[in-house]
Amino acid sequence: MQLGMVGLGRMGANMVRRLMRAGHECVVFDVHPEAVAGLAGEGATGSDSLADFVSKLERPRAVWLMVPAAVVDATLDELVPLLDPDDTIIDGGNSYYRDDQRRSARVAEQQLHYVDAGTSGGVWGLDRGYSLMVGGDETAFRRLEPIFATLAPGVESAPRTPGRTGDLHPGEAGYLHCGESGAGHFVKMVHNGIEYGMMAAYAEGLNILRNANAGSVQRTADAETAPMENPEAYRYDIDIAAVAEVWRRGSVVASWLLDLTAEALAASPHLDQYSGRVSDSGEGRWTAIAAIEEGVPAPVLSTALYSRFASRDLDDFANKAMSAMRSGFGGHDEKQD
Amino acid sequence: MQLGMVGLGRMGANMVRRLMRAGHECVVFDVHPEAVAGLAGEGATGSDSLADFVSKLERPRAVWLMVPAAVVDATLDELVPLLDPDDTIIDGGNSYYRDDQRRSARVAEQQLHYVDAGTSGGVWGLDRGYSLMVGGDETAFRRLEPIFATLAPGVESAPRTPGRTGDLHPGEAGYLHCGESGAGHFVKMVHNGIEYGMMAAYAEGLNILRNANAGSVQRTADAETAPMENPEAYRYDIDIAAVAEVWRRGSVVASWLLDLTAEALAASPHLDQYSGRVSDSGEGRWTAIAAIEEGVPAPVLSTALYSRFASRDLDDFANKAMSAMRSGFGGHDEKQD
Amino acid sequence: MQLGMVGLGRMGANMVRRLMRAGHECVVFDVHPEAVAGLAGEGATGSDSLADFVSKLERPRAVWLMVPAAVVDATLDELVPLLDPDDTIIDGGNSYYRDDQRRSARVAEQQLHYVDAGTSGGVWGLDRGYSLMVGGDETAFRRLEPIFATLAPGVESAPRTPGRTGDLHPGEAGYLHCGESGAGHFVKMVHNGIEYGMMAAYAEGLNILRNANAGSVQRTADAETAPMENPEAYRYDIDIAAVAEVWRRGSVVASWLLDLTAEALAASPHLDQYSGRVSDSGEGRWTAIAAIEEGVPAPVLSTALYSRFASRDLDDFANKAMSAMRSGFGGHDEKQD
Amino acid sequence: MQLGMVGLGRMGANMVRRLMRAGHECVVFDVHPEAVAGLAGEGATGSDSLADFVSKLERPRAVWLMVPAAVVDATLDELVPLLDPDDTIIDGGNSYYRDDQRRSARVAEQQLHYVDAGTSGGVWGLDRGYSLMVGGDETAFRRLEPIFATLAPGVESAPRTPGRTGDLHPGEAGYLHCGESGAGHFVKMVHNGIEYGMMAAYAEGLNILRNANAGSVQRTADAETAPMENPEAYRYDIDIAAVAEVWRRGSVVASWLLDLTAEALAASPHLDQYSGRVSDSGEGRWTAIAAIEEGVPAPVLSTALYSRFASRDLDDFANKAMSAMRSGFGGHDEKQD
Repeated sequence: MQLGMVGLGRMGANMVRRLMRAGHECVVFDVHPEAVAGLAGEGATGSDSLADFVSKLERPRAVWLMVPAAVVDATLDELVPLLDPDDTIIDGGNSYYRDDQRRSARVAEQQLHYVDAGTSGGVWGLDRGYSLMVGGDETAFRRLEPIFATLAPGVESAPRTPGRTGDLHPGEAGYLHCGESGAGHFVKMVHNGIEYGMMAAYAEGLNILRNANAGSVQRTADAETAPMENPEAYRYDIDIAAVAEVWRRGSVVASWLLDLTAEALAASPHLDQYSGRVSDSGEGRWTAIAAIEEGVPAPVLSTALYSRFASRDLDDFANKAMSAMRSGFGGHDEKQD
Repeated sequence: MQLGMVGLGRMGANMVRRLMRAGHECVVFDVHPEAVAGLAGEGATGSDSLADFVSKLERPRAVWLMVPAAVVDATLDELVPLLDPDDTIIDGGNSYYRDDQRRSARVAEQQLHYVDAGTSGGVWGLDRGYSLMVGGDETAFRRLEPIFATLAPGVESAPRTPGRTGDLHPGEAGYLHCGESGAGHFVKMVHNGIEYGMMAAYAEGLNILRNANAGSVQRTADAETAPMENPEAYRYDIDIAAVAEVWRRGSVVASWLLDLTAEALAASPHLDQYSGRVSDSGEGRWTAIAAIEEGVPAPVLSTALYSRFASRDLDDFANKAMSAMRSGFGGHDEKQD
Repeated sequence: MQLGMVGLGRMGANMVRRLMRAGHECVVFDVHPEAVAGLAGEGATGSDSLADFVSKLERPRAVWLMVPAAVVDATLDELVPLLDPDDTIIDGGNSYYRDDQRRSARVAEQQLHYVDAGTSGGVWGLDRGYSLMVGGDETAFRRLEPIFATLAPGVESAPRTPGRTGDLHPGEAGYLHCGESGAGHFVKMVHNGIEYGMMAAYAEGLNILRNANAGSVQRTADAETAPMENPEAYRYDIDIAAVAEVWRRGSVVASWLLDLTAEALAASPHLDQYSGRVSDSGEGRWTAIAAIEEGVPAPVLSTALYSRFASRDLDDFANKAMSAMRSGFGGHDEKQD
Repeated sequence: MQLGMVGLGRMGANMVRRLMRAGHECVVFDVHPEAVAGLAGEGATGSDSLADFVSKLERPRAVWLMVPAAVVDATLDELVPLLDPDDTIIDGGNSYYRDDQRRSARVAEQQLHYVDAGTSGGVWGLDRGYSLMVGGDETAFRRLEPIFATLAPGVESAPRTPGRTGDLHPGEAGYLHCGESGAGHFVKMVHNGIEYGMMAAYAEGLNILRNANAGSVQRTADAETAPMENPEAYRYDIDIAAVAEVWRRGSVVASWLLDLTAEALAASPHLDQYSGRVSDSGEGRWTAIAAIEEGVPAPVLSTALYSRFASRDLDDFANKAMSAMRSGFGGHDEKQD
């Protein structure tokens, strides 16, 4: 079927390619004309404005937005007046699910359908397919199923879960209608929250391995620093890249994230090209807020989020306050260890 | 080659089977004669005492212990006097790496080799193979490589990491010599620490999904309980088993642990047969202690460990103390919400 | 001066008493007539409806609300139409600071002042005074200063901070204008967030003392449970009530919360009358959300909050999921230890 | 009575002064002769070697060590051979309680008493007195009580806990015999663990106040950074030093640590002289290890400890690993925000 794609960055462009490979027809737009030209050269129908883009789509139109969360509202402001009743907008980016609730209500006033499609798969989705978590009205979801089915990895991308036989159960095809408006991004949000936790789990563990030689390092003995308890127990020099390889095979912690970690370590065993300032892009925060508002404990996911904040020195004043207290009660000066 | 196996529980028995399938010869012993009889019926050489077991092994002997960490010392007390110089003992269980350091020094006095082999793979290892993290002297490691190579999943069990070509790098065959005595169990310990973190990440995320309908639940309005901030934002009824399926395909959080979770949810969407009292078996604790002694942050791994303690009500007195304080400063009575 | 008080619960009634002791005149209202009658018997002017209450106040009126956060909006719906331009409403309860922002804008349309006054001191404030954190327009704050000065403990309630001499600096009198609308409740919110962290710090520490005899308890040795590492190091029976006493004198952790804890332990060394289900009443949640939205790490405060959730078994499904995973990969059954 | 003091640093010198003020006789030694000379000028009996020091003490001697934990063993190696049966050694420093267990057993072979005396009070103890947590055999404790009673703040340093009347209960005098050898340092260790948690609670809260203006800061809108959710809710400029003052009076979070924080903020509202690299000196680590080995949750205390590690960049490799994963799955480059 025909799909219009707005936003041809990392994700959007590859989704268009994956759709075209399967015979779907794509009309594309981006604020960067060269991105449009590139995909036009691969078979897509280019457009040079949102109006031009809309005019090239057949009714009822299906318009997929793959733009930064921060510019969705601005895009809708311009796009919505150009659309006609029964057209569908799909937000495939990393929007906050509450914005979906608000936006779907807004466009419903114009008889437009609004679908939120949480999309996981990163730069690898072109070949692996994208895991799709979809929310919004069921009619629109059904109409778009050929698109979702093509973008998704397909049931065969993983062995069927033991106990699952016969007709496919929901989700097994790699896409899922999760519920009403916002449900897709809600599930995607929690997905990313889990991702933060898993990443931190690997990162902390690798750091412990990396410092398994801490007992070989000399320490000062003074009132500020306790002697290391058991230095003789920490004298291993561990090949972390090799550990990642062995864990990839048969271990309980095998995962796609571990595969990626192994690849990074194979290329750069000490990861020296990274500064260690870790960004966060919204979902981790929203997941923690959801846990708090629901009243359920999420200490691991929240702590993983806070570690990212701290990696960017956002704990600076807190640390100064602790140093000030230590100075106050004990006359302790800060050490530069 | 020939291997002796002591301990024919869940893990040990399947390891013997995997070795025999590949043509290795196994002599087996267990304190439960029926476990010995079972494997004898499958082709192993049974024995009815440690002395009998040792007598059936050719020198230099290779004796693999697959027994609970708590009984390794008692087993060594009985086994070591029966062995001869140049024999090798392999501890494949979940021993603390510091015990390896102590034990290897002890048996070295009798010219015995001591190898620690952290073993991951659980009940699935018979078919998937076992991820093996090995420590101890290199001579013994080399001599045992045919055993390790058979037990391990093999390089083909995962696509080679991009950037890895030609001869196998360490770890790619699914087993790795990690370093001196204890290094194998050290790496396995951290592996399990990461596993705790990953499990908690999934568990917290699924709990957030499960409570995505919290806004549909009525709450009392009194001084003890703030009204829910945004009830209208939490009215989703999410099919968690279906979410696990969709995440298994193409998502960033795909992993073997997720596969197992999907299987559990397929069989029992609400997991009602579990009480939620989560055991911990040592490695998670040791990992946290290692982080602390090394001086590196491991808040995610430690928090995951503490969540298990709390699941078994080991926070009971702490909670009472908080209730007592609330009563003290605010006259707050405990609510049973 | 004259003040009207709506809400005569734990806090409101004592605040009225403290004001009257200092010669202020109080008009009071509560939905429970007996609460009104009680204070009328102590010298306050009672009223039997909000209309009656308002009619007994001189213009420009000052109306202090001391009601549950959940009923502030309903109270305002009824109260605001009864007021006249230049009257002032003070919300002294535990409202969310964002609600102050919304409410102050709303009542400003009727030329009413709106002051948010975060109030700490609990049931002890009658004698100790209340710490007051105030937000809103400065005119109204200045007009109400005689009230704040009476309710607050006064500068002499603590030794002046070394370095503070001469005229009082802001805050030294025990009340503070923190900023625009909502700033008072924002500071009070963070105050309570800190309180959650402090309470959890004491509670965890006391629990560690309480279990200092863990090494005297027999443990099973099986594959599910590692033997305790160093049982001989945990054989102390510690008198926790006595420890609280010693810490109250000269130690770094001395505090009012510790005083209250000592009192609870003096009355009941094992705190057996508490179930350990710890409530939370909003501010702890809001503090964590503020940290997340600001992008600053607050792992201690958030973890303290989550511990309260877990004390009420809101981690139930998460724990079941972990047990299910353990069963899946290792065949582990849950233990009831 | 007479007491010998070894170690005349911050703590030891002031303890000698406090004892002399009360009429006790002190013999002093330090590896720095000028420290000895200083106290000799104030009335103490100086000594120029440990042998000289011991010779000036009357039998049965009482020798208080106030030296860094790292040099206690070396000091004992030199001191113990100089002592006679029934002499007592008191370790008043920050030793690990397990070292007390080991050391007390060792010196018991020479009929020496060994007392561990956890000492809190910092540089303020001279005037406020020291909170003393004592372990070891009861005979020695009783013999030393005049010393403990002088060093401790005394019952009158805090109002008696409601419910405590008549004869003093254990701990009320400001010193406590906590149990057998090591019990004093065990209780002191947990005390410091709590202190870490409290300090982090204040520090995190102050950091949230400090960033209450986050909504006034411009943020980039791109795929890496979600727009701030509610910038209009974070536009407060809060006078943190004034907040500390108001909290000192009548609030639930009033404490001695808060007094010290207020003093630091009065002198330097932005704490610019601190770098924010926060040391840890052993007890926080040991407290977390004790929690883990006992099997009780201590997420707040552990997280506070880990925040200190992170303040010293010991999370560096972990952060790099997270950046590497983000690059791997999403093509995300690190931002320098």
